[in-house]
Amino acid sequence: MKQLKISRPVMERLPVYLHYLKSLPEKPEYISSTVISRALRLGEVQVRKDLGIVSGAGKPKIGYGTLDLIHSLEEFLGYNSTLHAVIVGAGKLGMALYDYEGFREYGVNIMAAFDADPAKFGVTSTGRKILPMDTLAEFCRENHIEIGIITVPDNHAQEVCDRMVDAGIPAIWNFAMHQPHAPAHVRVQNENLASSLALLCGSLRQQLE
Amino acid sequence: MKQLKISRPVMERLPVYLHYLKSLPEKPEYISSTVISRALRLGEVQVRKDLGIVSGAGKPKIGYGTLDLIHSLEEFLGYNSTLHAVIVGAGKLGMALYDYEGFREYGVNIMAAFDADPAKFGVTSTGRKILPMDTLAEFCRENHIEIGIITVPDNHAQEVCDRMVDAGIPAIWNFAMHQPHAPAHVRVQNENLASSLALLCGSLRQQLE
Repeated sequence: MKQLKISRPVMERLPVYLHYLKSLPEKPEYISSTVISRALRLGEVQVRKDLGIVSGAGKPKIGYGTLDLIHSLEEFLGYNSTLHAVIVGAGKLGMALYDYEGFREYGVNIMAAFDADPAKFGVTSTGRKILPMDTLAEFCRENHIEIGIITVPDNHAQEVCDRMVDAGIPAIWNFAMHQPHAPAHVRVQNENLASSLALLCGSLRQQLE
Repeated sequence: MKQLKISRPVMERLPVYLHYLKSLPEKPEYISSTVISRALRLGEVQVRKDLGIVSGAGKPKIGYGTLDLIHSLEEFLGYNSTLHAVIVGAGKLGMALYDYEGFREYGVNIMAAFDADPAKFGVTSTGRKILPMDTLAEFCRENHIEIGIITVPDNHAQEVCDRMVDAGIPAIWNFAMHQPHAPAHVRVQNENLASSLALLCGSLRQQLE
């Protein structure tokens, strides 16, 4: 597998290239690393290195075939093969993620949300299913769920994580501030908004002092 | 300023230590880096280094005064001095962030949301203000807004960023996939959910193959 050696910053930039290329209103036949690097304000050497991993080198003085490059990026990122996800916690953040159409473009299909509150069970106006927590394990096994998204309050994150692990989910995307523990074979990615804010505010407060 | 030399991973971990300490139901008088590192599954040397930046070394064989350490972390992260923020884009994600009580704990007070759609203007059931885009600049200047949070669709992110810059906002937290450009004196932090997904799914797809 090529991906094994890809660093985190590179993996984070690949969707940005893809998004840029797909958002070009008129796609040129070829596009150069110079054009891409200027548009995204990235170093040209970096762009060339990143894209080289995915698609090989561009043609000298011409660049990359635009459609080929889009295809290579999608292939590399696995957007052509769908992963199945569930959300646990049908609060505002959970439902915002559930309604976000963009995830399909990234090859992730959110199949249902789960909640402990019976008042929330049912189908929303946008056609999203909210199911009782009791049915999580069965649903995950029947639908081969690969990603569990945690959007419950902090104090429930560990319990929800445990239930996802028991249901056989191999990857967890956690939006709670509490970072849950999972066995080594389960990958947990924490999306910690407080940490992001600390980064942004830290440098801002320096500036303001 | 101490913070100038703090690396990004350290700044990201500091709120995690703080959250852990504050969430302890019974706070011990002292807490050791061993206990903290086990609870958070971090290396002990790393924990000691991180906390050393904020509060100096703990006492040998005893550790850090728990309340002192909480206070030092809050002070260092600036949670005791409030920053003022606005959200532009009163869709689901915008409102989920607006309603998130946790931000106050991190020293950020979201004062209002703005939207271009008149149907959204007014005060929500949770007491949140949604104001017309036209009034953004005036509101930001009058209320000394320091952080602008972008939660509009991708194709409006640059325009919103430009208007925030014009309104004198020095720091922007962008949740749109499109990474907007801003002048060098404005700090932009991109919260790119697609990049996070790429990280999580990349390693998952490797595992599944």
